[in-house]
Amino acid sequence: MLDQIKIVLCFTSHPGNIGAAARAMKTMGLSQLVLVGPKNFPCEEALVRSSGALDILDNAVVVDSVEDAIEDCRLVIGTSSRNRALPWPLIEPREMAKFIDGKPESRPVAILFGRESVGLLNEELQLCHYHVNIPANPEYMSLNLASAVQIISYELRLKHLEKNPIAEEPLELKDSELIATSEQVDGLYQHLEQTMVNTEFFDPENPKLLSARIRRLFAKSHLNQGEVNILRGFLSSIEKYIKRKTN
Amino acid sequence: MLDQIKIVLCFTSHPGNIGAAARAMKTMGLSQLVLVGPKNFPCEEALVRSSGALDILDNAVVVDSVEDAIEDCRLVIGTSSRNRALPWPLIEPREMAKFIDGKPESRPVAILFGRESVGLLNEELQLCHYHVNIPANPEYMSLNLASAVQIISYELRLKHLEKNPIAEEPLELKDSELIATSEQVDGLYQHLEQTMVNTEFFDPENPKLLSARIRRLFAKSHLNQGEVNILRGFLSSIEKYIKRKTN
Repeated sequence: MLDQIKIVLCFTSHPGNIGAAARAMKTMGLSQLVLVGPKNFPCEEALVRSSGALDILDNAVVVDSVEDAIEDCRLVIGTSSRNRALPWPLIEPREMAKFIDGKPESRPVAILFGRESVGLLNEELQLCHYHVNIPANPEYMSLNLASAVQIISYELRLKHLEKNPIAEEPLELKDSELIATSEQVDGLYQHLEQTMVNTEFFDPENPKLLSARIRRLFAKSHLNQGEVNILRGFLSSIEKYIKRKTN
Repeated sequence: MLDQIKIVLCFTSHPGNIGAAARAMKTMGLSQLVLVGPKNFPCEEALVRSSGALDILDNAVVVDSVEDAIEDCRLVIGTSSRNRALPWPLIEPREMAKFIDGKPESRPVAILFGRESVGLLNEELQLCHYHVNIPANPEYMSLNLASAVQIISYELRLKHLEKNPIAEEPLELKDSELIATSEQVDGLYQHLEQTMVNTEFFDPENPKLLSARIRRLFAKSHLNQGEVNILRGFLSSIEKYIKRKTN
């Protein structure tokens, strides 16, 4: 899916934003960048801000008009704030990713991003099937261009990962990393209780509340075997110390 | 919830990234920024890149150590890639937002972001209850600092919005924007069919497939009343034109 999604930056003023957008795309596994009438590209500043996502910039397609950019696309989505003058089908980024994922017959897909200053113009928005709105703070909607690309790409990546989980090398768990069995935790509890009786911290006549609290603490801590061993070692050291002192 | 989350940038080298992070936070409604040992702050470049999120920078707290930054926090989360040497409770950003939202007793919360070059050091990661991992492209994990802040803040905002939907002014729907009733769509269909019979495009002896396709097209288009009126106006114009020509 990710290879069939074009990120289309329309009439970008600052080449640094083009570089930063390429970097954002690449971190999320997107690769198809189209630039419509960039003010200044190719450009050193774009290379610097891309921080190693040079392949994305090298393969970027530069065209003169939005129409040229979306020519072969079957689904066109424009990033936009809510347009009250001409209501248009409006979705959020997560919904958008789900939609693109569920409609392979609609690919390739173009996602349009407008100028830094004013976004997409009305005639550009009217080329879109959907508008996608990043739900920003209504008191401060000034999302950076590359940040918008980052969020949109992130949602696409999460959807992609749902279908294509990364096969991780299984972690080689050391014995000490295994969660302790109930028996091991109970052994620790008995050991602790005995020590607390010995130090007269624990009153066996009235054990209820303290006992429950300690058992709850152990339960929520998900102690592993290594930790149980450390704690029991500590308890043993207390006993030995007491024995040495009292003998 | 958002006011009780501190974004803690640790030992940031480039002041531009501090400004961009402030902007990212503000777009998502976060406001608490803490800077641990920034290389260069306050600084003109931070102001420029903050693009109007000056209040966040003005209120930023600058401290010398991570310990000072998290002193009063009840939950500390560190951004990190998977750490194979010392496995630590690891969550993804969406899970993190859900967790913070569901545990009001764990606030204030600190979310730590490391150096641009190497992230958080092991001893900093060990101050955390959880590590949060943005699932980036394994072949290119080079997420910009402000981009990472943007994604984390975005997930927090989405969770916040779930609980606090923005009360939108109801759109004042014009009649033309109302979805057409079934009766109106059927009227359009009858009108179209009659016109197609007149122009001999439609064979009433064998209507099945064409009829179904047109009805399906209407159904999925969710025509509104204005559109039905436009289409019927067009059909009427065809009839009138034919009449003029054939009389």
